[in-house]
Amino acid sequence: MRIARFSIDGNVAFGAVEGDKQDELVLDIIKGIPFADYELSGTKVPLSKVRLLPPVLPNKVVAFGRNYAEHARELGNEVPDAPFAFFKPSTSVIGTGDEIQYPPFSEELHHEAELAVVIGRLCREVPRERVKDVIFGYTCANDVTARDVQKREKQWARAKGFDTSCPLGPWVETDLDLDRANDLTVQLTVNGEQRQLGRTSEMIHPIEDLVVNISEAMTLLPGDVILTGTPAGVGPLHVGDEVAVTIEGIGTLTNKVVKRG
Amino acid sequence: MRIARFSIDGNVAFGAVEGDKQDELVLDIIKGIPFADYELSGTKVPLSKVRLLPPVLPNKVVAFGRNYAEHARELGNEVPDAPFAFFKPSTSVIGTGDEIQYPPFSEELHHEAELAVVIGRLCREVPRERVKDVIFGYTCANDVTARDVQKREKQWARAKGFDTSCPLGPWVETDLDLDRANDLTVQLTVNGEQRQLGRTSEMIHPIEDLVVNISEAMTLLPGDVILTGTPAGVGPLHVGDEVAVTIEGIGTLTNKVVKRG
Repeated sequence: MRIARFSIDGNVAFGAVEGDKQDELVLDIIKGIPFADYELSGTKVPLSKVRLLPPVLPNKVVAFGRNYAEHARELGNEVPDAPFAFFKPSTSVIGTGDEIQYPPFSEELHHEAELAVVIGRLCREVPRERVKDVIFGYTCANDVTARDVQKREKQWARAKGFDTSCPLGPWVETDLDLDRANDLTVQLTVNGEQRQLGRTSEMIHPIEDLVVNISEAMTLLPGDVILTGTPAGVGPLHVGDEVAVTIEGIGTLTNKVVKRG
Repeated sequence: MRIARFSIDGNVAFGAVEGDKQDELVLDIIKGIPFADYELSGTKVPLSKVRLLPPVLPNKVVAFGRNYAEHARELGNEVPDAPFAFFKPSTSVIGTGDEIQYPPFSEELHHEAELAVVIGRLCREVPRERVKDVIFGYTCANDVTARDVQKREKQWARAKGFDTSCPLGPWVETDLDLDRANDLTVQLTVNGEQRQLGRTSEMIHPIEDLVVNISEAMTLLPGDVILTGTPAGVGPLHVGDEVAVTIEGIGTLTNKVVKRG
């Protein structure tokens, strides 16, 4: 099932996305909370009539660095022996259709297409064989990075945590199993031109490793998001660009770049 | 005023701390939200009868690294030209009296006493002269660090973000002005023995710089916390230790170290 979060008449709701053609998608409004007990209401609204929101409001976004060897090399970095993680704050999260605001303290924003894992249960020290049980679903992410700031600052709170630096969406796909999620095409276009193309099967550390690694240290909460790293092909974004992340079996996350007002 | 957050009869409340002697402190229960409109109810409970909680539940904790030259040097690091920041997640926050749980993935926990700034208003791109207006108050923090993990992992999500790694408390002091907050004694003891002693006047970047720096990139929310860096003298914590951070004009934050259960 594809679960979207949206605003309608000033209220926030979740809905199951039905249909195949982009123009004809319909939302069946969900009663209850997707992470817990819920049912479909049968009340349907055309997706074109609502504003999609980030599909979850994460307490924390944990992002893994250099999880694709070719991407590590393209930036002149070594491939790390073990995974390493950083945070993006909840204030950085936007949804599909929202604007990426080019911040005044950077002159080199880069796109980074990534598969995002959405956690469904409160958990810690998750054993490898239980990872599948704590995952709610998957969505697309763009780990937007101020590359110039990242080079200057030893830790990346500003470079990767500025407002609008974490587009997530368009919805959460809950029907992919782990094996499939570890073997999906990830593609990114800027103004329709392909810039990144990879498969999650190229990840150095598959999803299971990442969940084990981070949950060894800290509690994950329902709605928390794990970004799994970006394939090769990262590059600049400019004001006016439209950037789109498409992941096989999930959907397309589209954002326009504007100057911060 | 000293504003504490506590649980009483299963409810969470805020209260103004009254009195001077540790054994005789009383909480005047607050009606409303301390960040917005509130008043003192006049209903008082002895502090000894309640459980203090972290004085705020931050959406994000932004922590600055190497903001005291002597501390940077003691770990063999260069003093950075500009401030740099990392995040500690909300799941890492505990209050005074709570236990620091020694996590299984580290064998070298270190204490780091720090002045914590509590943000009172939603803000971004705060000009230097307005910094005083967005600060709600100050509390004590211990930026507990898995030093061995920090050395191995390029970004510090696990090393500084594990559960219980962010003790905050005992309460928020709202009556310190900025000049005073930039000139306070910060002290840390382990089992009563002094390990760290510094003054916030030794900070390379004073509070104004830190708020300007981070708010340039991202929106700060009421209750967000900024950790201002630790003075020299960091060192190991062991299971069974009692670690206490005392900041002049604020109070003492005390935590015991236990093995994670």
